[in-house]
Amino acid sequence: MFYSIKDYITAVKKRDPAARSILEIILCYPGLHALFFHRIANFMWRCHLYLIARFISHISRFLTAIEIHPAAKIGKRFFIDHGVGVVIGETAEIGDDVHIYHQVTLGAVTSEKVKRHPTVGNGVVIGAGAKLLGPITIGDNAKIGANAVVISDVASGTSMVGVLAKNL
Amino acid sequence: MFYSIKDYITAVKKRDPAARSILEIILCYPGLHALFFHRIANFMWRCHLYLIARFISHISRFLTAIEIHPAAKIGKRFFIDHGVGVVIGETAEIGDDVHIYHQVTLGAVTSEKVKRHPTVGNGVVIGAGAKLLGPITIGDNAKIGANAVVISDVASGTSMVGVLAKNL
Amino acid sequence: MFYSIKDYITAVKKRDPAARSILEIILCYPGLHALFFHRIANFMWRCHLYLIARFISHISRFLTAIEIHPAAKIGKRFFIDHGVGVVIGETAEIGDDVHIYHQVTLGAVTSEKVKRHPTVGNGVVIGAGAKLLGPITIGDNAKIGANAVVISDVASGTSMVGVLAKNL
Repeated sequence: MFYSIKDYITAVKKRDPAARSILEIILCYPGLHALFFHRIANFMWRCHLYLIARFISHISRFLTAIEIHPAAKIGKRFFIDHGVGVVIGETAEIGDDVHIYHQVTLGAVTSEKVKRHPTVGNGVVIGAGAKLLGPITIGDNAKIGANAVVISDVASGTSMVGVLAKNL
Repeated sequence: MFYSIKDYITAVKKRDPAARSILEIILCYPGLHALFFHRIANFMWRCHLYLIARFISHISRFLTAIEIHPAAKIGKRFFIDHGVGVVIGETAEIGDDVHIYHQVTLGAVTSEKVKRHPTVGNGVVIGAGAKLLGPITIGDNAKIGANAVVISDVASGTSMVGVLAKNL
Repeated sequence: MFYSIKDYITAVKKRDPAARSILEIILCYPGLHALFFHRIANFMWRCHLYLIARFISHISRFLTAIEIHPAAKIGKRFFIDHGVGVVIGETAEIGDDVHIYHQVTLGAVTSEKVKRHPTVGNGVVIGAGAKLLGPITIGDNAKIGANAVVISDVASGTSMVGVLAKNL
């Protein structure tokens, strides 16, 4: 786990021009805290300690306002920027070097007990407020714009955006 | 109130495939906690204890990141899923069996002291990030999509959606 | 600072019909609390106490779910309504009498260490969930609609809106 945190700090230093020191990243990055709690919750989940796992994720949500289901599979150097309002569902799968902003949702559109959340490839960037819904696949290095709503597969390397505001 | 909470738990078990036990729902569902606080705040409000009522809703917002004005009228089995960022205004009215997701806003577009928030019918489902603004009426069993912006009445049983993201 | 808080309370009383008393505004308005913390954090930042400044803004984010970078420049009577999920970036500049709602983002689209966040004029109103991205200028008294995405300059006095939801 400590290796994963070290990796994370390197990733933040590269991606966030506002980050000034390692101590700042450790103390002031809720995305790091949420990831730390998730690693523990996910370990508990894999030990079949479901209630404890869920309770850890609940505490994490209280402390960070980021909600990650303990069963979600998350790759290396996952950077949650700002983070308030992020929701990642039970059957979501996230690759390596993914960068998401606050209010991003990896959600479901069915209430059946199947794979119902997105699979996100490596190097994907997802803008603030974007909603990715259903068991869709987001290809490697795709970019999703702020507030975009995505309910079907996205090919690798493509950019998906919603509609820009217009003069009334 | 306890009857209402029992009802709530039954509703969650039916709607959320990730919910595994009653204890999990009681401990880990911020939507339930927010509703519990709202029942108390709403009672205080009806006793004309306005400041105490508002302070309870403020504490509830801190604990759950869900903000419900104490004067809002809410029906049975109201399920707030995930919940971070939900805002429900003073003159909002919500029917029975309504299911809303995180970041849903039942807001106002005027600052006059009149009925200025939505009235939501029974069985309505509102997706994450949707903004319903003004003294509009959402008919029974309507569905509102993620990130949709709604500022006029919606007929019963209809689905309202915003624009899906497109390839840039 | 106390003058600025008195100013703030006057502004809230004028703009929010749900506000009933000064004590209510002091106790129950997270936007006021966030602004109070920001004034301290911003002072620390200007004293080159960067880490303390960032940590104060981190505590403020935990308490209010509003995230304001300590270096952001904010004018008088800035009213953050509801506030959960607001993110204001390092190089953002905000004029006087600006009114923003929850989930508003003043964000960046580059990770270079330059002016990369919006400049917002006096009297601007920004609706819930709107995302303003890049070093753009929002003219005085402009209005931005709920969930709108804005990535270019907005002229004074104009209204920018996204797309309303349509019947599926």
